[in-house]
Amino acid sequence: MKVLSARYNTGIVRRFVVLGHEAHTAPDYSLNDLPGTSGRIDVLVRCVTAAFLLSHGIRKDVELYLTLKGPPSPPRTIRFLGSEVRHLNPDERSTAALLLKALETQSIFESLSTKGIYSSGLGFQELLSQLKGPFVLLKEDGKDIRKHAMPKDAIFVISDHLDFTNDEENALMSYNPFVISLGPRSIHADQCIIIVNNELDRREAQL
Amino acid sequence: MKVLSARYNTGIVRRFVVLGHEAHTAPDYSLNDLPGTSGRIDVLVRCVTAAFLLSHGIRKDVELYLTLKGPPSPPRTIRFLGSEVRHLNPDERSTAALLLKALETQSIFESLSTKGIYSSGLGFQELLSQLKGPFVLLKEDGKDIRKHAMPKDAIFVISDHLDFTNDEENALMSYNPFVISLGPRSIHADQCIIIVNNELDRREAQL
Repeated sequence: MKVLSARYNTGIVRRFVVLGHEAHTAPDYSLNDLPGTSGRIDVLVRCVTAAFLLSHGIRKDVELYLTLKGPPSPPRTIRFLGSEVRHLNPDERSTAALLLKALETQSIFESLSTKGIYSSGLGFQELLSQLKGPFVLLKEDGKDIRKHAMPKDAIFVISDHLDFTNDEENALMSYNPFVISLGPRSIHADQCIIIVNNELDRREAQL
Repeated sequence: MKVLSARYNTGIVRRFVVLGHEAHTAPDYSLNDLPGTSGRIDVLVRCVTAAFLLSHGIRKDVELYLTLKGPPSPPRTIRFLGSEVRHLNPDERSTAALLLKALETQSIFESLSTKGIYSSGLGFQELLSQLKGPFVLLKEDGKDIRKHAMPKDAIFVISDHLDFTNDEENALMSYNPFVISLGPRSIHADQCIIIVNNELDRREAQL
């Protein structure tokens, strides 16, 4: 049985899950051509930056799961824990290098890669069943995020540049998620995370 | 006299100006180490992506000015026109390569680099005087963007990872800008652009 580390149940209040449909599950890609060689790990890397980086520091209250379904050995889940992670820079290349390192392990059980970054053989549906929810599915035709209350421990589930498959969406829908829209335009996964973070910052500050 | 091209006065409705305090003004940096060799052109590159990229396409109604003040031959302004630009990909490296190309010219007058990307010797204060405003200065202690009307042709002026100098802020303040806050946390320049785009998307859709 695959289990998340005992660190899972901390005081984290913001969680994001990003699904990389073709993202490589081995360190076989080139930092000089991320879009062309990695199954679009560049998309996931931008999600890391969006989730954690403030102007001067790291959001310690965020936890991010990247679930990779690409070749050669899917699935793999890389977990970033804001309270532990260090040396996270805003440029794509340095974060892609951290992911390269995290993909060196092929362990099913979760293991530490670099500080605050964990790797396991969890798949998307297993991850959902371990996290349990409450989940938020971001969709253009969802309810407007500005007009709807959400639980503080809501977990935002986002797809990469490809849509969720029917199976993936059905799995998520079985948890009865909040279906939320961020605005009238269809935007990139990392842009979604930035807008969610802004909205949650405002709620915390009661703006 | 330095002038913007005749294309300036189009139907563009969203304009951003980003000031790169140390951003190199020659194609002398390495795509393999943008943060370490370019005067943080990586920050500007992320602003390009934030300004223009939707999930499936480019925001044609956006114009972005990057004003570079770094060595060896400051100032230089690179202008991106959404209605003309092509081949803009979301990864940092490919956009940084477009900027390398744009920095090959040292012409004072504006000249075309690649489709939709122009380079000139304009400096920050000259650019402000040509654009004329109305300007928006983003500051943490400004008025909440969600609660304040702004003219549709407002031009958002943003600094890179460094604060505006007193001279730069005084120059901007002489145009009596709207001083606007996006939220309670201090965030990166590209994140600001994403939130502004979302806010303007909503206003256009009357959400």
